[in-house]
Amino acid sequence: MKNHIEGAPSESNFKLKAESLNLRVEPGSNDVIVKNLYVSIDLYQLNRLKSYSSSQEAVSAAARITPGEAIDANGVAKVVVSANPEFKRDDLVVGLISWGEYELVKGGAMIRRLEPMGFPLSYHVGILGTSGFTAYVGFYEICKPKRARKFLFLVHMDTLWDSMRNSVVATLLAALVAILKEKLGFDDAFNYKEETDLKATLKRYFPDGIDVYFDNVGGEMLEAAVANMNLFGRVAACGVISECADDSKRAVPNMIDIVYKRIKIQGFLSTDHFDLHQDFISMTCDALRAGKIQPLEDISNGVDSIPSAFTGFFRGDNIGKKFVRIAGE
Amino acid sequence: MKNHIEGAPSESNFKLKAESLNLRVEPGSNDVIVKNLYVSIDLYQLNRLKSYSSSQEAVSAAARITPGEAIDANGVAKVVVSANPEFKRDDLVVGLISWGEYELVKGGAMIRRLEPMGFPLSYHVGILGTSGFTAYVGFYEICKPKRARKFLFLVHMDTLWDSMRNSVVATLLAALVAILKEKLGFDDAFNYKEETDLKATLKRYFPDGIDVYFDNVGGEMLEAAVANMNLFGRVAACGVISECADDSKRAVPNMIDIVYKRIKIQGFLSTDHFDLHQDFISMTCDALRAGKIQPLEDISNGVDSIPSAFTGFFRGDNIGKKFVRIAGE
Repeated sequence: MKNHIEGAPSESNFKLKAESLNLRVEPGSNDVIVKNLYVSIDLYQLNRLKSYSSSQEAVSAAARITPGEAIDANGVAKVVVSANPEFKRDDLVVGLISWGEYELVKGGAMIRRLEPMGFPLSYHVGILGTSGFTAYVGFYEICKPKRARKFLFLVHMDTLWDSMRNSVVATLLAALVAILKEKLGFDDAFNYKEETDLKATLKRYFPDGIDVYFDNVGGEMLEAAVANMNLFGRVAACGVISECADDSKRAVPNMIDIVYKRIKIQGFLSTDHFDLHQDFISMTCDALRAGKIQPLEDISNGVDSIPSAFTGFFRGDNIGKKFVRIAGE
Repeated sequence: MKNHIEGAPSESNFKLKAESLNLRVEPGSNDVIVKNLYVSIDLYQLNRLKSYSSSQEAVSAAARITPGEAIDANGVAKVVVSANPEFKRDDLVVGLISWGEYELVKGGAMIRRLEPMGFPLSYHVGILGTSGFTAYVGFYEICKPKRARKFLFLVHMDTLWDSMRNSVVATLLAALVAILKEKLGFDDAFNYKEETDLKATLKRYFPDGIDVYFDNVGGEMLEAAVANMNLFGRVAACGVISECADDSKRAVPNMIDIVYKRIKIQGFLSTDHFDLHQDFISMTCDALRAGKIQPLEDISNGVDSIPSAFTGFFRGDNIGKKFVRIAGE
């Protein structure tokens, strides 16, 4: 990162450092050098790139990036050199690498060996990675839908209104209404950026009210959802893209609605729910193999495309889960 | 009620109708005529007295009062005439009566026989009535405090910050800081209306953060509480006095805080939790007999004091649970 970000990110916040790395691992260090293949573009990164004053206290100081530092990110990589008995050359790994071509993973921490299980490597960054797991946790653990007519978060359920805009599902809503309806089997879809009166819009799409809202947007979307919620409605909040990119945008949900309709709004991070991870993987793999989930992926190519991929993500340019292919296998 | 209320209530919204009632009960009707003794002054009444447009949709049309109607309210009364085998003359009853001197209770519905159990009648409107039950449900069922150092909602627990302003507890905070600290054993107390920077105030009182916030106020109090909350903080919301009395006041809690700190905000009404009512009564009676709870009551006298009692309540004039004694036993 070149400098701290205020408001929406721009490409000028980033600088590609081209230098010949002289990475080496000391025997016994457990360090691993990996070649990065795919890296994820995620909402949460923006909060880490802001200055302390404009960012939230809730984002711990330890997670912040300071100008000049490389930016760590989830991704898939291949082992080049290893001083760690758990990894050998050419092993595929998944975990915390960085927005760069190579990475020295100290002590081999925060990565694990990846078994692709027959799926494209990109799936392990998206649908089978943190994005998919967040959707799974939010939906099954936080929203707890009573009846699941169809499988998982890509599908419209009961009166679930899924506006996850920047994870596996939500990006879809930014532009791809037709895909949502025709290819992915949602009952309906709309582009919320094109709507001027979101409360009326939701009333139209949910004449019988909303039971569950998976919130990744915040702002006026959250307000409109609360206004249209049924008794005992539930909101699972795992991101606030409208507020991250514009500090002046804040949700003002009607608290009287929240009391009278006994609405529950719950923030969550998937990292608190690793006990569910194995269930998530097996359920999602089964659904993928049965063709019940069709991941939408939006891939940019090359390390130098990261700044534009990241800034475009906050404009809603991406059609599906956004990541960057740094190198082929 | 004389006319609908907009914003804060004033005494001119009410009119005392003095008329000689010719109440009679038909044999077999199950109707009951009662003489009202104590009636409750409650936050939720204001929403029922507003016009449809200014009020919230969440307040069901059936609960609204139209100008000219008497205003039903919780209270304690004595049976005068009964055509209902469950009630006989001079029985004490508790339930939905009205802001008036006498009431014809159709079919004997919404009242039940009251056994005072040695407590003052007023207790059955306050600490043992809906106010106490709401506090109990909110605290034990919604907030679920992990450790309870002392008994019940009148006592500061763990890092509970109790601002219930208009129920059994909360009224206290409006003025009676000394009573809270010295008589009721709270760790500390303050008058939030005197504070200009609530976030800083809470930081001072809760240097280690807030775990549980029982919200009856909304607005800036809720925002400040969310800003000062610890990870996995919980907000139980059962009233929004600042927003009820002033439509322009809205809480703008920081959603990024809510996500990162995994905060849960949950609206509730005690009416959903009648399965807990018997536990509440026995626990509270035991605590009262052991002197562990000391109810604070603020009683006005006479039916003509109801308008000033109600309007004063929204200014925070009351010192303790507010009700009106209509007549002595």
